[in-house]
Amino acid sequence: MSDVPAPIETSDIEIPETGATDALADDEHYRDGAIDLLGVLAYGELSAFERLAEDARLAPTLADKVHIAQMSAQQIEHFRRIRSRLAQLNADVMVAMQPFHAPFDAFHEYTAPKTWLEGLLKAYVGDGFAADFYREVAAFVDADTRTLVYEVLYDDEHADFVVERVLAAIAADPKVAGRLALWGRRLVGEALSQAQRVAADRDALTSLLTGTVDRPGMDLAAISRMFSRLIENHTKRMATLGLQA
Amino acid sequence: MSDVPAPIETSDIEIPETGATDALADDEHYRDGAIDLLGVLAYGELSAFERLAEDARLAPTLADKVHIAQMSAQQIEHFRRIRSRLAQLNADVMVAMQPFHAPFDAFHEYTAPKTWLEGLLKAYVGDGFAADFYREVAAFVDADTRTLVYEVLYDDEHADFVVERVLAAIAADPKVAGRLALWGRRLVGEALSQAQRVAADRDALTSLLTGTVDRPGMDLAAISRMFSRLIENHTKRMATLGLQA
Repeated sequence: MSDVPAPIETSDIEIPETGATDALADDEHYRDGAIDLLGVLAYGELSAFERLAEDARLAPTLADKVHIAQMSAQQIEHFRRIRSRLAQLNADVMVAMQPFHAPFDAFHEYTAPKTWLEGLLKAYVGDGFAADFYREVAAFVDADTRTLVYEVLYDDEHADFVVERVLAAIAADPKVAGRLALWGRRLVGEALSQAQRVAADRDALTSLLTGTVDRPGMDLAAISRMFSRLIENHTKRMATLGLQA
Repeated sequence: MSDVPAPIETSDIEIPETGATDALADDEHYRDGAIDLLGVLAYGELSAFERLAEDARLAPTLADKVHIAQMSAQQIEHFRRIRSRLAQLNADVMVAMQPFHAPFDAFHEYTAPKTWLEGLLKAYVGDGFAADFYREVAAFVDADTRTLVYEVLYDDEHADFVVERVLAAIAADPKVAGRLALWGRRLVGEALSQAQRVAADRDALTSLLTGTVDRPGMDLAAISRMFSRLIENHTKRMATLGLQA
């Protein structure tokens, strides 16, 4: 795996100076935001389980199938941990996930991979983009929730697997690169479109980022810098695969 | 869950008096049998993962989906444990599973559930029958392998879930019972047919049961009693669901 480029840094996320943990008990709206974040993550994990199980069926070798099956099972372990954290916050995971069924199901319907490589790229580029965004939001929640979010999103092992397989496929047939580059752009376009839908519907989640009268968040300049970071990391991931973003 | 009948006893399996553990190091053929048992179990777990992930897609509610997804993920945890035990025996899981691809894939091709209830019955009745058989074979391997086999096969929680759902479906529509009874008979018929194929191909596995010149196994009368136990447990499971075997 020595040819694989270094993983993308996410340590440059801006953490607000306000003490987010102290605010949790006082601010009901804030708590709702944390629950929304955990809800979207929980449904994301379930969706990822299903999608990876589907990818496992397309695996070209049994060893690849075993790898993807293990990844798939890991999403359920993440789901359990998120459910436990929600229970600590006196929230039910089923209720917390409910607002996110429609946008997630739509995203997956519009971006169903037709090949093994499309599935791999979706898991790396699509999930990578989503994970970066969740990490940005997690900077504004309490420390325990933030730690959990970081842990369930951390997945270098899978990234290495995808990078290796995609680079090998492009080396074997360079035409693959153009099709995958198009696919990567489509994934991010659909993800942004569904994210806008969520942002419009879920005030509590959105105001984690933007803040409220009593609690500072990102101003417009900071939100713009956040989007720049998301796009920059996406471009790095595509470049890691030898693809133009 | 108080209406659910007591789980089926498997404690009446006959354990041979010979010290199986001592024989392990001495008898290469015997070790091959243990590896075959672990190989068939490992491939069975992978197959169960895929099948349960497929069942999860058919789940009528999100809560049902979560339950089945957790069951599916658990098969991968079992798979990891079997792989570790094989590694302790200096055997590679990929090699050990290889002889069982064809019979398992054929079984699942011939018994693909068309509905949620067919999937549940397959997981309970089909896997229950297979599990009983593996437990019988496990009586003839070393203690560590036997303990592992028992642990990965133990699954009362899932049985309770299936029993509850199937009984509710039959209560809501009694016509369901006739179709499911037929389905249960077909599952066991196909399972026996594939098991015969395995028995014909895999001397090492078969001779765990029947013994060798140096190591006693079951005689014909004992094998006949084993089949009686398998059929009896199957009949009990079907009766638990209110179905005729």
